[in-house]
Amino acid sequence: MKNFVFQNTTKIFFGKEQLGALGREVKSYGSRVLLVYGGGSIKKIGLYDKVMKELEDAGLTVFELSGVEPNPRHTTVNKGAQICRENHIDVLLAVGGGSTIDCTKAIAAAYYYDGDVWDLVTQKAPVINALPICTVLTIAATGSEMDCGGVISNVETNEKYGLVHPLLQPKVSFLDPTNTFTVSAYQTACGSADILSHLFDVYYFADNDGKMDMIDRIIEEIIKTVVKYAPIAIKEPDNYEARANLMWAATWALNGFLGTGTQMAPTCHMIEHELSAFYDITHGHGLAIITPHWMEHILNENTASQFKKFGVNVFGVDAALSDMEGAKAAIAKFREFLFQTLGLKSKLTELGIDDKHFTDMARKACPHGELAGFVKLAPKDVEEIFRKSL
Amino acid sequence: MKNFVFQNTTKIFFGKEQLGALGREVKSYGSRVLLVYGGGSIKKIGLYDKVMKELEDAGLTVFELSGVEPNPRHTTVNKGAQICRENHIDVLLAVGGGSTIDCTKAIAAAYYYDGDVWDLVTQKAPVINALPICTVLTIAATGSEMDCGGVISNVETNEKYGLVHPLLQPKVSFLDPTNTFTVSAYQTACGSADILSHLFDVYYFADNDGKMDMIDRIIEEIIKTVVKYAPIAIKEPDNYEARANLMWAATWALNGFLGTGTQMAPTCHMIEHELSAFYDITHGHGLAIITPHWMEHILNENTASQFKKFGVNVFGVDAALSDMEGAKAAIAKFREFLFQTLGLKSKLTELGIDDKHFTDMARKACPHGELAGFVKLAPKDVEEIFRKSL
Repeated sequence: MKNFVFQNTTKIFFGKEQLGALGREVKSYGSRVLLVYGGGSIKKIGLYDKVMKELEDAGLTVFELSGVEPNPRHTTVNKGAQICRENHIDVLLAVGGGSTIDCTKAIAAAYYYDGDVWDLVTQKAPVINALPICTVLTIAATGSEMDCGGVISNVETNEKYGLVHPLLQPKVSFLDPTNTFTVSAYQTACGSADILSHLFDVYYFADNDGKMDMIDRIIEEIIKTVVKYAPIAIKEPDNYEARANLMWAATWALNGFLGTGTQMAPTCHMIEHELSAFYDITHGHGLAIITPHWMEHILNENTASQFKKFGVNVFGVDAALSDMEGAKAAIAKFREFLFQTLGLKSKLTELGIDDKHFTDMARKACPHGELAGFVKLAPKDVEEIFRKSL
Repeated sequence: MKNFVFQNTTKIFFGKEQLGALGREVKSYGSRVLLVYGGGSIKKIGLYDKVMKELEDAGLTVFELSGVEPNPRHTTVNKGAQICRENHIDVLLAVGGGSTIDCTKAIAAAYYYDGDVWDLVTQKAPVINALPICTVLTIAATGSEMDCGGVISNVETNEKYGLVHPLLQPKVSFLDPTNTFTVSAYQTACGSADILSHLFDVYYFADNDGKMDMIDRIIEEIIKTVVKYAPIAIKEPDNYEARANLMWAATWALNGFLGTGTQMAPTCHMIEHELSAFYDITHGHGLAIITPHWMEHILNENTASQFKKFGVNVFGVDAALSDMEGAKAAIAKFREFLFQTLGLKSKLTELGIDDKHFTDMARKACPHGELAGFVKLAPKDVEEIFRKSL
């Protein structure tokens, strides 16, 4: 196993009606707040009013940036940074899902950069400082509420890249499962696919130095948590137990703990980013379609045992099967879970995607000529995975 | 499940030869360091020299407090605080196990209190501030390297109590499994019993509000990690994989994560503290002897299913057994693990303890007339557990 440095400083308020602490927490970072949110669902569920009341009761001056896109755009980030500069903002408050939080993180860094945030995303310029970030989460999915990264899209160039820096770690995040009761069955399924993909990013990394057994076991239990509770949350949207387990699972899937002792490799995320960069689809849905094809593409005598282990421990696949048969049974069970139990569509064509850009997308998914992971992929591999997913 | 606030800010350096970062990390908190350690085993294994070299290379001025006891005494804490005041210490560095780290935490708080640290331990005076604390860990056991509590003994009054405050959270901890290669089979067994007891403190708490399923599953996996690797570490003291898994398990058993959503209840710890307060025995050994008797004492129709679940999921007890039969089988397996696999002695008499103080100890273990936990205990219950453990 690898040496590592682990630290995660985010303060989490988890549970019902914890917002009473919001004003005090935000105020500890300053008095002028930029509230960032998306398409307005937080107004429909009454969360906007609750948040505004807490901020106003704490005597804070609130500015707003609304309309953050599901795949947040660098132009929106630039607009947010401009608002911060013009209004001498002290602290940012994201109220929404991963997209809103990711956009807020990029604004936090862009505030200190005299130029286009795309320079920071493409690493032409370094992140030198960031405004403090607070969040109120509304969907269990990306884990952005307790990690230091975000993903930003450039629709002019069809590019979507991560912006990761320790300064982008949220100071405080409010996780109230009841705020996810109104998340649709479709978005619950997509969010769950995203959580699973984060878990696979650490579960399926065949590090030459080996892994820490304890971490491997814990990853499997969080996978099982998602497999158990996502269907319940879809059938019973206001099931607190299901929503709470999904929410805490999402947070821990990507907050650093499960990557300790190995090297995370977000292979499917890298492949999917090309899909949503070119077609603006829902990230989790793209992941759900791509992932089983990725599994099949890299299935061989060396990888079969890990896929079988997944099947045996998560889906109750018969341990007496050979590695290869067990692996195939595991992938079949996983497919059934995604496309029957969660009800997601299984083909890219069903999302309006054709093969026009596949060669270009595959090349872009392999920035250094290959894509690291459980098995290294070349652009031709990625293109084949795209084609099989059609 | 309960609402909660979770935050753990400690920065962990885990792995071989990470000490190169020690000087820089300690120096970020000041230039005058008090190095705190125990009976000198860190000199035998060469760790003292390595630490001193790093501190000196970073240009730090080092003072020392050695001889911290296995159950650290309030008089030693007072002495440490005095050294800090006389020498204008900026930052504390504990190099050792849980006792050394606990002592260091108490010194950190005592420095800001003009009186006996026992007033802080007994909550006659509040912790108002603390010196920053860094640690280099040498045994997998207490979890003190990543939590905000410590336990201090008063041998004049035969009392042993916890001192817990957010300010006592270590800033940075260095966890190198190779530093535990020389931990004896006996101390490895005792440390493992301590880890298991911390896990039971959160596993066996029948919260009226229910538990978070994900956390319950993770606790079981960490228990299984200890059950798997403690015997390996005893047989092969320099097995890196075993030592690393035990070390990381110990840290996560008590860093707050596994208590999320429920209320931790350290019942056996409270009972054992009376043993080591009166007889100065090794904490983990006392826990090992007490715990199976505690399990049997509270075993009834309401508690049996949780004990059975433990047996089935951890020790492979037959799931087809009745709750009561399964629970009994689980306790038998746990006994076998402690007293045969780990080789610990199973009776208090074997540690030189008689029943002279049991009534007094049982009363002290129930500070408010009862002891909270999976099942509430009265002094007569605690006394019975002591007597059965003789």
